[in-house]
Amino acid sequence: MTLEELQKKLIKNNLDAYIVTRNNMFLGQDVLEEENKVKEISNFDGSAGNLIIFRDKAFLLVDGRYEIQASKQVDTNKITVICTNDSIGSWIHNNIDNPCTFGYDPWCHSISEIDYWNRALKKHTFKEDTKSLLGSRIYNKTVNIFEHDIEYAGISVEEKISYLTEFMLKNELDAFFITECDAVSWLMNLRSDCLRDTPIIRAFALIDKSGEVSLFTSDMQKIETEIAHYKGLNIGLSFNHTPKKIQTIMKDHRVWINNIVNPIQLWKAVKNPVEISGFTNCHLRDGIAVCRFLYWLNKNWYRSDELGIVQKLHELRSNEENFYSDSFATIAAFAENAAIVHYQPNKQTNKHLKADSVLLLDSGAQYYDGTTDITRTIAIGKPSAEIIDSFTQVLKAHISAASACFPENTNGSCLDTISRAELWHFGKDYKHGTGHGVGHFLNVHEGPNSLSPRANNSPLKAGMVTSIEPGYYLENAYGIRIENLYKIIQDEKISMLKFEPLTLVPIDKRLINKYLLNEQEIKWLNDYHELVLSKLLPLAPEEIMPWLKDACSPL
Amino acid sequence: MTLEELQKKLIKNNLDAYIVTRNNMFLGQDVLEEENKVKEISNFDGSAGNLIIFRDKAFLLVDGRYEIQASKQVDTNKITVICTNDSIGSWIHNNIDNPCTFGYDPWCHSISEIDYWNRALKKHTFKEDTKSLLGSRIYNKTVNIFEHDIEYAGISVEEKISYLTEFMLKNELDAFFITECDAVSWLMNLRSDCLRDTPIIRAFALIDKSGEVSLFTSDMQKIETEIAHYKGLNIGLSFNHTPKKIQTIMKDHRVWINNIVNPIQLWKAVKNPVEISGFTNCHLRDGIAVCRFLYWLNKNWYRSDELGIVQKLHELRSNEENFYSDSFATIAAFAENAAIVHYQPNKQTNKHLKADSVLLLDSGAQYYDGTTDITRTIAIGKPSAEIIDSFTQVLKAHISAASACFPENTNGSCLDTISRAELWHFGKDYKHGTGHGVGHFLNVHEGPNSLSPRANNSPLKAGMVTSIEPGYYLENAYGIRIENLYKIIQDEKISMLKFEPLTLVPIDKRLINKYLLNEQEIKWLNDYHELVLSKLLPLAPEEIMPWLKDACSPL
Repeated sequence: MTLEELQKKLIKNNLDAYIVTRNNMFLGQDVLEEENKVKEISNFDGSAGNLIIFRDKAFLLVDGRYEIQASKQVDTNKITVICTNDSIGSWIHNNIDNPCTFGYDPWCHSISEIDYWNRALKKHTFKEDTKSLLGSRIYNKTVNIFEHDIEYAGISVEEKISYLTEFMLKNELDAFFITECDAVSWLMNLRSDCLRDTPIIRAFALIDKSGEVSLFTSDMQKIETEIAHYKGLNIGLSFNHTPKKIQTIMKDHRVWINNIVNPIQLWKAVKNPVEISGFTNCHLRDGIAVCRFLYWLNKNWYRSDELGIVQKLHELRSNEENFYSDSFATIAAFAENAAIVHYQPNKQTNKHLKADSVLLLDSGAQYYDGTTDITRTIAIGKPSAEIIDSFTQVLKAHISAASACFPENTNGSCLDTISRAELWHFGKDYKHGTGHGVGHFLNVHEGPNSLSPRANNSPLKAGMVTSIEPGYYLENAYGIRIENLYKIIQDEKISMLKFEPLTLVPIDKRLINKYLLNEQEIKWLNDYHELVLSKLLPLAPEEIMPWLKDACSPL
Repeated sequence: MTLEELQKKLIKNNLDAYIVTRNNMFLGQDVLEEENKVKEISNFDGSAGNLIIFRDKAFLLVDGRYEIQASKQVDTNKITVICTNDSIGSWIHNNIDNPCTFGYDPWCHSISEIDYWNRALKKHTFKEDTKSLLGSRIYNKTVNIFEHDIEYAGISVEEKISYLTEFMLKNELDAFFITECDAVSWLMNLRSDCLRDTPIIRAFALIDKSGEVSLFTSDMQKIETEIAHYKGLNIGLSFNHTPKKIQTIMKDHRVWINNIVNPIQLWKAVKNPVEISGFTNCHLRDGIAVCRFLYWLNKNWYRSDELGIVQKLHELRSNEENFYSDSFATIAAFAENAAIVHYQPNKQTNKHLKADSVLLLDSGAQYYDGTTDITRTIAIGKPSAEIIDSFTQVLKAHISAASACFPENTNGSCLDTISRAELWHFGKDYKHGTGHGVGHFLNVHEGPNSLSPRANNSPLKAGMVTSIEPGYYLENAYGIRIENLYKIIQDEKISMLKFEPLTLVPIDKRLINKYLLNEQEIKWLNDYHELVLSKLLPLAPEEIMPWLKDACSPL
């Protein structure tokens, strides 16, 4: 489908515009390239973006992370790139004055989103596209589904389903319809190789109050047949994450629809002891792999490029026990490439490393016993004093959150502020959240917990796993990010929660201006390095030991 | 009106229950004793509370601050005291099962509140009481209204009205109906002596797009006559702050009603240069008065009690130029009394000061050129090491916010976190916000800006005035709060906002454990004291100079 073809269809179908989202029916970021309608029409391949296509013009809405990338990828003669934090609805509200009829795919927008459009944008009309003008959104590939062993999952499927049936009893529901793939994967202890870096199964699930489960993967006709059995009965589902189309089907069959937040999201976010111990163990192996990489890089940077680095790191990780895949496409970004927050190297952009700047390396792995996600910013040659000061300021922001105490159920937005405020002191900021939840051999970005300015309904609890990853990006110059994963634990002495590091890899001391750190910050760093050394040294290959000891020596 | 009389009226008027709020038609806390229907019926005189009166029973809903006081004041054989954070609507939703018809006074509840009842509590019926069963809500006392001189107000009434007519033009309104008394006072540069500590005029205003203004004080019949002129035309008003009755009148007269946030709230919050310079000047005089008080207290505490302190401080302030009144009832709370956050001394609770504890003193004044609000916690004798550590921790929280930098439009909730997080490190917290906006010779608590966990729609801007006042309260032991007012200014070097102190009074160094402060915190305190000394010394009476120099000497 080209832009022009779609624009012709608008006229035929009496539409003024069409809203093209990158989502498929699972409403998440994990979309196969073959399914990505935004890329198909605009050539923009970032992980978030929406097209609003009129008969004679088109807009691509992206957030700050993708402003530069989008302008490079799309034909800006035909498509105007808009950098905005507005949702589709808010943007239309603020920018489209004449009443318009918009088409949209009811499989690819949530009930809440469509409700909002209809409520808040009364002058416009939003029409369910029942003809699938864009073509199918789901690419049917052969998928290998496998069990996630109880030795890693910690809780049996039967027990998990019993939580849910109890929940349904309490809420007087006859069934629950789950649309979040990672929740379905968690509930059923199932995984698949459908996506490259995320071992979820892509499925909806309908769980009867009896405990019986129906899974829907590619055969969406089956959904209607199953739903029909619940005529006059109560089904729970989450309006925020259920395609509008499901509501339409349920209404057609006179099912009572109850908007209820899927409780699995919170159960899944609070890791069980087996998952926590898996997270701990896989971070030992991941730490060794990344340290071996850093040792190698030290000797070989002058003959390396970004793509080679991605490859080398992947090789070292894949030798580790329980390795399954990377957990996302590695960001290896040298010098000015690192200023593009979600940069991923390709043949056109691939940079050779050379003195004197920094390499930003954001990578992770899926192990059967847990998931990792780490960013290190690494000195190449002798970076400038300005880079060193910026790195140290980002480190202060990292430490500020990592060493915080906070009451149970504090909003994630508070931890975002605690980190970000350190950079504000230097007139700096970053256009992304400070951290995200991490799934257990699932999505590397997992809700509901999140450390972000918008995370006001995301209470933090003991047992959650989160990244802390403040950064600083200077366009056309360099980029810095320091990311560890942490588990949230109860403090032993005071009635507060705090963070305990999972990630075990030294932070590059060559980039630290000690005089910008206060005593507590220096203590945090030295304690962290002492921990890294004590955990990794017994497992490290002999050749990297001297490097590791030096990298972990006190500041 | 007695409880029994009202209950008889319920039967006559076919009502199952009646909702009695403490509010009058101005929907704020500032209610004269004579107007307080909750007090009239129940004898409870706290600053927040609602009665729900059935034919055979009655409930008084109060929040945690007033649980004890309410139980003492009401006849609990007739009225059940309920301690809850629920709104009236939520409480009815959660507690009244049988469908009931409730009467309410449409002058005393906002449009939003009634809309919520009708939307969320569908099984009940809510009936506008058109007969004023409770009698009049407005006590007609003779009020002296006076002009707030342009020399203090900074902007003429004509100019202010022109902002509003421009706003109406942009929003296609024919008139704006303003119900917030402080906004009306600001717009018209008028003040009155109606309330003891808040010089607002109590009035509604209807501003025509031509700039013509109608003020409504006590003659509410006039409102209907004026509104009738706008048949078929557009009036803007804020549903959150307009009595339901106004909407009814407008509907009766076929006026088009537009729910629009009153823009004056933000204009008023961003102080003009004349107001800022007034704030600066009145804080010099207020600083002198408070320092004279502290000097006096140092010598006389052993023969003082809380009520005497309130009196003495008032006397010293009232000698200052431009003094008009206190800005709220002074909180002078010694030892365990200070653990009660909203304590005010009376004859029953009045404590004599004695070694060794702390006095919490929260007070302020209305001057014609500005408003002050300051809390100092003062050593009496030799307070324990625990109190000193707590004070120092609260000071760290104060400094953390006071020395913060933040981007324009940062939410007030972020500054709340920046302050509070310092106490979290020590396992401590406080159950109130970190700060509030301050009116200029108006309400000492003024929105929309606020530093509180709930302040997510309260963007901070240069020119705003706010308190910073973290605290710590240990029940039955002691209470600590450190409060200054600050103006928000643009930093000269970096593109960030920051705070500049308005309040100029030393912070009690006898309560500081220096070893809990880091270098930057010590520097902040010493800089602050240097500022206080440099500003106050030239104005101080000679007898307090040695004390002032000592109180401001570096830590």
